[in-house]
Amino acid sequence: MRVPYETMKREFKRILMDRGFTEASAAQAARSFADNSCDGVYSHGVNRFPRVVQYIDKGYIKPDAKATKVGGFGALECWDGNLGLGCLIAEQGMDRAIGLAGQFGIGCVSIRNNNHWMRGGAYGWQAANAGCIGICWTNTQPNMPAWGARDRRIGNNPLIMAVPRREGHIVVDMAMSQYSYGKIEAYKLNNQPLPYPGGYDTNGELSVDPKEIEKTWRVLPVGLWKGSSLSIVLDLMAAALSGGNTTAAVGELGPDEYALSQTMIAIDPAKLHDSEAVDRMLDASIAYIKSSLPAAEGGSVYYPGERAKSIREDNLQHGIPVGDEVWRQIKSM
Amino acid sequence: MRVPYETMKREFKRILMDRGFTEASAAQAARSFADNSCDGVYSHGVNRFPRVVQYIDKGYIKPDAKATKVGGFGALECWDGNLGLGCLIAEQGMDRAIGLAGQFGIGCVSIRNNNHWMRGGAYGWQAANAGCIGICWTNTQPNMPAWGARDRRIGNNPLIMAVPRREGHIVVDMAMSQYSYGKIEAYKLNNQPLPYPGGYDTNGELSVDPKEIEKTWRVLPVGLWKGSSLSIVLDLMAAALSGGNTTAAVGELGPDEYALSQTMIAIDPAKLHDSEAVDRMLDASIAYIKSSLPAAEGGSVYYPGERAKSIREDNLQHGIPVGDEVWRQIKSM
Repeated sequence: MRVPYETMKREFKRILMDRGFTEASAAQAARSFADNSCDGVYSHGVNRFPRVVQYIDKGYIKPDAKATKVGGFGALECWDGNLGLGCLIAEQGMDRAIGLAGQFGIGCVSIRNNNHWMRGGAYGWQAANAGCIGICWTNTQPNMPAWGARDRRIGNNPLIMAVPRREGHIVVDMAMSQYSYGKIEAYKLNNQPLPYPGGYDTNGELSVDPKEIEKTWRVLPVGLWKGSSLSIVLDLMAAALSGGNTTAAVGELGPDEYALSQTMIAIDPAKLHDSEAVDRMLDASIAYIKSSLPAAEGGSVYYPGERAKSIREDNLQHGIPVGDEVWRQIKSM
Repeated sequence: MRVPYETMKREFKRILMDRGFTEASAAQAARSFADNSCDGVYSHGVNRFPRVVQYIDKGYIKPDAKATKVGGFGALECWDGNLGLGCLIAEQGMDRAIGLAGQFGIGCVSIRNNNHWMRGGAYGWQAANAGCIGICWTNTQPNMPAWGARDRRIGNNPLIMAVPRREGHIVVDMAMSQYSYGKIEAYKLNNQPLPYPGGYDTNGELSVDPKEIEKTWRVLPVGLWKGSSLSIVLDLMAAALSGGNTTAAVGELGPDEYALSQTMIAIDPAKLHDSEAVDRMLDASIAYIKSSLPAAEGGSVYYPGERAKSIREDNLQHGIPVGDEVWRQIKSM
């Protein structure tokens, strides 16, 4: 079924207000979950919503928590999320980074003790919508083996980078595992192999078989040793700047994932250069890349963020695709 | 053969002074090339030095060029490298970013019209040696196909991230191609297959055969579609902040690579948190990752930057490994 954007937002808001969120917070969070779904990131939108409500009910997510400032020095600040709803605290953090960029050209806000921020790309779009370059990342619980290791001691720590552009922002939102757990499960449910190796089987060989990978959960980092290294440094930067938990420390909290560390950076290029000239340069570069010789006949080359934009337009017009069972569950909450 | 660090530095300095560099600039650049070699990055140290001299002789690299400030706003600055020697301008850029971090907690310096900065990791180590987190990247000429493309229209745009730590900095220095051109050539010369697929053969299939990959030069981005996206956004951020060339524009300059765009960011965590507490947290996290169950019996898990440190210690003690022919060429310059 396809649910209209406004209907989805209304349901999310109702449920969050029932759980003790103020009307303003509930409306903001409902917009965030609906936007993620509308952009096609269902895994961190409508499909994730029931589990978020479960975490509220378990007490991991505090409906009345407010972020508090731990310290600051010029364009650099540290905030404590106090275990509020991840997307609210993260949005507030990026908003503050954008404010600092207005004042200093660049702003950096580190956050400790936040919950899962859902779709990291959202904060890249947020920065770009404000005319800023956005760079942000989060750590996670240990969910991937380091390169050369068998057990999972590093996170898949998503990294987001966004560049504002009038004709459509350029936004990368990538976790450090080649495939998410959700993707691997989806291929398994469809009885399909992964298009490229996504992890190791029980013999220690790279595999495209989701069932085999699920036996070991030795998922593959992007770029093999490179993504493993990037994951480690992202985690340690986030923790060093926030004074909060590393992936290792999050793992010690138990099997559920909370109290994460995040970094939000915004940079305002208009403080240095004429925005229209920059836009022309970005357009020329995108056109050059998109006119590549396609690898497969009739194929297309997309710039990062391009498909989110077209999915969003389609979903706004025709409603957001939702599994009947998921939507029934949400309606009954 | 193995050449002592001081001997190597002296030779580099002599040659650069002969080419019109001031004594101070020649000494600084010689140290940079010798350091890269000493850390084991021979491809961007001693082995690259003859080609750098060739670029000086061709006029791409200007020995007397000085970086000039284009503009600035608070913690954000833009500089023009005026086609100086890449490593000198980049080091100056990171030095300025560190200075801005001292003043504002974070500093960002964008550079246009710089030459190849050699080993990007050098500027990560530089930031970390100053107690700062360092984040920097450069664009390159078009040398890799975008995901879904056949011809090379994006760069392999190295990204560097560094975290300072008393017991050894954590430094990632990664290009966006799974293997460098140099690595692929080295495997070919040794008649060995790559350990993992590094590009496509003429049938459009992923290949571990360096000879086949050289026929297409369709090298593989790290993490497949993910590294392709990351490459694009790094390029566009560097160009939007510097107002300089995109990878597309560098390609238009011709087959030689010059006039690149770079971004240098430094962040000082000590402005927010007690350094010793941060260090203890980093140590605990590194210990946790290093004590992973190894994938192969007797194997080790390394943190990023660990091996550079041990190679450096060995090379300082026993001299830097250099091919006889390369060293003869340098001596005769």
